[in-house]
Amino acid sequence: MSDTVAIGVDAGGTRTRAALVAADGTVGGRAERPTRPGEPSALVDVVVEVVHALAGRSGGDPVAVGVGIAGLVDAGGTLRYGPNLAVRDVALVPALHARLGLPVTVLNDATAAALGEQRAGAARGRRDVVLLTIGTGVGGGVVVDGQVVTGANGFAGELGHVVVQEGGRACPCGNRGCVEAYASGRAIAAIVAERLASSAGASVLRERPEPSGADVAAAAAAGDELAAGVLAEAGRWLGVALASIVNALDPELVLLGGGAAPGAAPWLLPAARAAMAERLVGAGWRTPPPVDLASLGDDAGAIGAALHALARVPAT
Amino acid sequence: MSDTVAIGVDAGGTRTRAALVAADGTVGGRAERPTRPGEPSALVDVVVEVVHALAGRSGGDPVAVGVGIAGLVDAGGTLRYGPNLAVRDVALVPALHARLGLPVTVLNDATAAALGEQRAGAARGRRDVVLLTIGTGVGGGVVVDGQVVTGANGFAGELGHVVVQEGGRACPCGNRGCVEAYASGRAIAAIVAERLASSAGASVLRERPEPSGADVAAAAAAGDELAAGVLAEAGRWLGVALASIVNALDPELVLLGGGAAPGAAPWLLPAARAAMAERLVGAGWRTPPPVDLASLGDDAGAIGAALHALARVPAT
Repeated sequence: MSDTVAIGVDAGGTRTRAALVAADGTVGGRAERPTRPGEPSALVDVVVEVVHALAGRSGGDPVAVGVGIAGLVDAGGTLRYGPNLAVRDVALVPALHARLGLPVTVLNDATAAALGEQRAGAARGRRDVVLLTIGTGVGGGVVVDGQVVTGANGFAGELGHVVVQEGGRACPCGNRGCVEAYASGRAIAAIVAERLASSAGASVLRERPEPSGADVAAAAAAGDELAAGVLAEAGRWLGVALASIVNALDPELVLLGGGAAPGAAPWLLPAARAAMAERLVGAGWRTPPPVDLASLGDDAGAIGAALHALARVPAT
Repeated sequence: MSDTVAIGVDAGGTRTRAALVAADGTVGGRAERPTRPGEPSALVDVVVEVVHALAGRSGGDPVAVGVGIAGLVDAGGTLRYGPNLAVRDVALVPALHARLGLPVTVLNDATAAALGEQRAGAARGRRDVVLLTIGTGVGGGVVVDGQVVTGANGFAGELGHVVVQEGGRACPCGNRGCVEAYASGRAIAAIVAERLASSAGASVLRERPEPSGADVAAAAAAGDELAAGVLAEAGRWLGVALASIVNALDPELVLLGGGAAPGAAPWLLPAARAAMAERLVGAGWRTPPPVDLASLGDDAGAIGAALHALARVPAT
């Protein structure tokens, strides 16, 4: 590890993960706590706990803390809207700075993951990258010309809410037809339940009344046709959203990350690639960008958040 | 005008326009010719003609030529795919440089228009801007953090091919359900024709068997309810596409430009604003970006192309 380290925190709807991260993206240690949604002070407490758990270990004195958090974060580091955390308007930067005594930066969790993958993961060295994270929901991050895109208010990268079917399936965001409503872990599980209820076809998932996204991927891996079919459809919808995104941004690489991506990849990736490729402007003569798995796994958000924080601390 | 000037050329499917443009975006003269699609050499000839028409006038010696052209332009300035110009793989930069003896840059026409509006038009001083151009088709340009986004291959900004309805109306690009298939001048005219054929309702457009987008806007302005309804629907589809785009990029300003925008604006703009606002992540508590008319009109592409070229010529 190089000398300068920061602590990156990835605060998701269910788990808050932290990593001690060097300037080259190397991880020197990890800590994890369950997130306690619903209460801003509990959210701050959990971040403080994981940071303290790591800061006490050897591996360098952290010079900053970067937080990636599931929600819309404004340019001042305030979590404006975090539906999966059930909080609004939490001024994280002053609250965490007061408790930690270190410089603190905050950004969206999937944007942090995109930054992590671009600096230290599967998109290392690429200038124009799009990341979709497939977990409970669908998140996103955009890198343009080597810089992560945060937008005018810090709200950019909400690629899970690219509309694929106006008036379509209800999305937790309140809109209809977002790609998240077709391809998130939660959506995949809901669609499996609907298929099981409306048909008598054989499926190992009949034994699980409320299958998770991971259960669906496991069933597909065991040869379950219903599970494999639902995952391929989810991949097709991801490809429709990616066609819009690639038409708009022309990235050189598209990555799928998030907890549900590795297990579901054998069905998601080919379907997403095919659906995207045939919908691009100039399809047939241009080379579509590769659609691959992200490589940093659960560390992506913490690594990206730490590197984001390190980039904003003056060199000592 | 300041001393340094460039010639900007906007080569569209029907007209090729040129302007003598100063570094501050001021236009010192204009020339125009009909485009002659289908033949690469004719395309080059028309650009040379408009440049010569302008270069002979007073107002400064142009130091460069910038071309915005309707199609996908790669990073080397080759027009890879121009469906409305009916050509492919035209190496414009060497061809034009040989004929004109000046530095030449080439980019997509709507991307050029976005650059023009951001440097010298309605988006002056804004860092994060999205432009949709409503003409025969729907074009787009994206400015992130003050820089126009061209993407890994130069193909970014194809916002007309953001999908709003998977499997929906056929688009000239070969895909279905692109916003261009619902909101371009051509689509608006086609939808009017379909409505007239399938209903007996009164409309002044019954007297025009093949109404243009401009005819539809004129009819709406004269109180024709069918025309106004079709334009409002087109605006709603623009709003659906803008929700996806704003969720992805969080611009501070959205502009509608292109030849059909000013006439149709009284119906397009309110419908687009409403449809976009209610579909954004966090709708209800965030402030949606304004959706306004672009201000440079037919000059936008030429101004942007000229400023793009000027920025790439070393100061003398």
